[in-house]
Amino acid sequence: MTDPVTLALTAGEPGGIGPELCLQLAAEPREAGLVVVASKELLAARARLLGVTVNWHDWAPGDAPSQAAGSLSVLDIAGCHSVDAGKLDPANSAYVLETLETAARGCLKGEFDGMVTAPVHKGVINEAGIEFSGHTEFLQELCGVERVVMMLATDDLRVALVTTHLPLKDVPAAITPERLIQVARILDADLRTFFGIEQPRILVAGLNPHAGEGGHLGREELDTIEPTLERLRSEGLKLIGPLPADTLFTPHWLDQADAALAMYHDQGLPVLKYQGFGRAVNVTLGLPIVRTSVDHGTALDLAGTGKADAGSLHTAIRVGAHMARSRKNVNRGLDS
Amino acid sequence: MTDPVTLALTAGEPGGIGPELCLQLAAEPREAGLVVVASKELLAARARLLGVTVNWHDWAPGDAPSQAAGSLSVLDIAGCHSVDAGKLDPANSAYVLETLETAARGCLKGEFDGMVTAPVHKGVINEAGIEFSGHTEFLQELCGVERVVMMLATDDLRVALVTTHLPLKDVPAAITPERLIQVARILDADLRTFFGIEQPRILVAGLNPHAGEGGHLGREELDTIEPTLERLRSEGLKLIGPLPADTLFTPHWLDQADAALAMYHDQGLPVLKYQGFGRAVNVTLGLPIVRTSVDHGTALDLAGTGKADAGSLHTAIRVGAHMARSRKNVNRGLDS
Repeated sequence: MTDPVTLALTAGEPGGIGPELCLQLAAEPREAGLVVVASKELLAARARLLGVTVNWHDWAPGDAPSQAAGSLSVLDIAGCHSVDAGKLDPANSAYVLETLETAARGCLKGEFDGMVTAPVHKGVINEAGIEFSGHTEFLQELCGVERVVMMLATDDLRVALVTTHLPLKDVPAAITPERLIQVARILDADLRTFFGIEQPRILVAGLNPHAGEGGHLGREELDTIEPTLERLRSEGLKLIGPLPADTLFTPHWLDQADAALAMYHDQGLPVLKYQGFGRAVNVTLGLPIVRTSVDHGTALDLAGTGKADAGSLHTAIRVGAHMARSRKNVNRGLDS
Repeated sequence: MTDPVTLALTAGEPGGIGPELCLQLAAEPREAGLVVVASKELLAARARLLGVTVNWHDWAPGDAPSQAAGSLSVLDIAGCHSVDAGKLDPANSAYVLETLETAARGCLKGEFDGMVTAPVHKGVINEAGIEFSGHTEFLQELCGVERVVMMLATDDLRVALVTTHLPLKDVPAAITPERLIQVARILDADLRTFFGIEQPRILVAGLNPHAGEGGHLGREELDTIEPTLERLRSEGLKLIGPLPADTLFTPHWLDQADAALAMYHDQGLPVLKYQGFGRAVNVTLGLPIVRTSVDHGTALDLAGTGKADAGSLHTAIRVGAHMARSRKNVNRGLDS
């Protein structure tokens, strides 16, 4: 028997495919208890548009989520101004953030074991005059932590990033000992807590091509990365590298590791998304809560057609449930 | 019937696995006529060490290369001082470069239809006091061309690079309109000539994550890349992008293209080597000659064990032969 876990599922941008991906789940067996955190009116409107019938269970903290076929638990969030598929409306932005805040606070209070997020649209939230640079940063601030780590994962590969959404020219200066230490410690700790790996083995990429080739192609490996990895190894972290990024992702290295740590976005994610196209999940590490997300956008052009593929959402739910169960096991081990 | 083509095969670093990879070919059916350009003494010594018997055919310009099982054609190059497996010797460096020069000049004179190179060791050549930064640059200078393009290819994927062996911090400034124009024109022209593609479709990556996200994550796409691609499109090039590198390598885009153009080394090569591990070939475009290479190094630790895998060398020969035949066909079409 696996532990029952309850995940909050935010439906994301009302005009995008998030609401209908949530609806698709009603008809399917679930790997975790799910509570959709969204406007009931929005969900009902999208169900009518697609000709889908869902029996709604109004969930309240403490309830077990409905697992019956054709049924879904929902925590209604007010304030969704317009429910049209394919259309952005800045007036919906406060509502969208309210779904995130409700889910996150529910996690912090223990009402949920984790949260899974459907895509939001950064642009339209900013148009509403609200500063917002993404789920990750929003949750980081709400949870009051100094550093979080973005990791993308498929069933076979995990890739975490030292830097994320930075112009390429700003990347080298951002690879500081402080940042490397924070990121590596979070990755190591969360692979233990949320993935049940006793002694995580992490492949670390260099910053430069060929990991700098002994200083011929850049000095950051010699000056910053190698000494920092050495320090972290003395703390007990099992870090392999810095390795050339183009040999890191080959069987010789991957077979002996639990995760790869890339220095920047386009060094690590192309291979992950190539390998796990449509089955990748975005995980935020370093938070006191479990948070996973789909790896795709709002797909406004697909919204309302019923053609959106829930593959990544299924992976996000499966991984979120696995992380929540793993944490329970680890905590139980610590208590006993 | 396929056209007979003759490829020069340089055996590379004497202490590495190059010589024994060449020996392995004697026992196998060949996809092209091969002439090993190397020290006969070196090849004979390595054959004795491995207990392999090869019948050597002393090749001279105009000869058809031997295709008989157990036999190999060789063009003997003098000056190899030491032939020990696993050991570097700076005294061999002039000889190594002589093999490259002989093969390249033979290509320029039409004695060979192309050249395939086994790995050399940059470090030991530099130790000998000879400036050498790689096959590519050596051949570029010998052939007197201003710009060459590095492309790695497997049977399913081709990835060319705008910049190659540069420290990451120097990449953004190197992405100039002039360089982009030269690289894209060479890639387009050589996909036509050497790969027989009538109207090459090329996916172009952005420089920044998410291809700059409309300027939020860097301005190089808006200021440099997009206007340059627009200009090249007006010349008839079929360029798609700039695309985010982490969505470029997914079926939606790859299915509609013949090659990808990455802005820098670690943006394009990790996915190529992940996809084509052990079956990738390195192609130099922009030269007046056909040149392919294995995608691995000298593997000094494996030299002399007979365990080296000739997979990449086979691919390099197959692709080199294909390129040489394609050029003959294109030239024939132009003549008729």
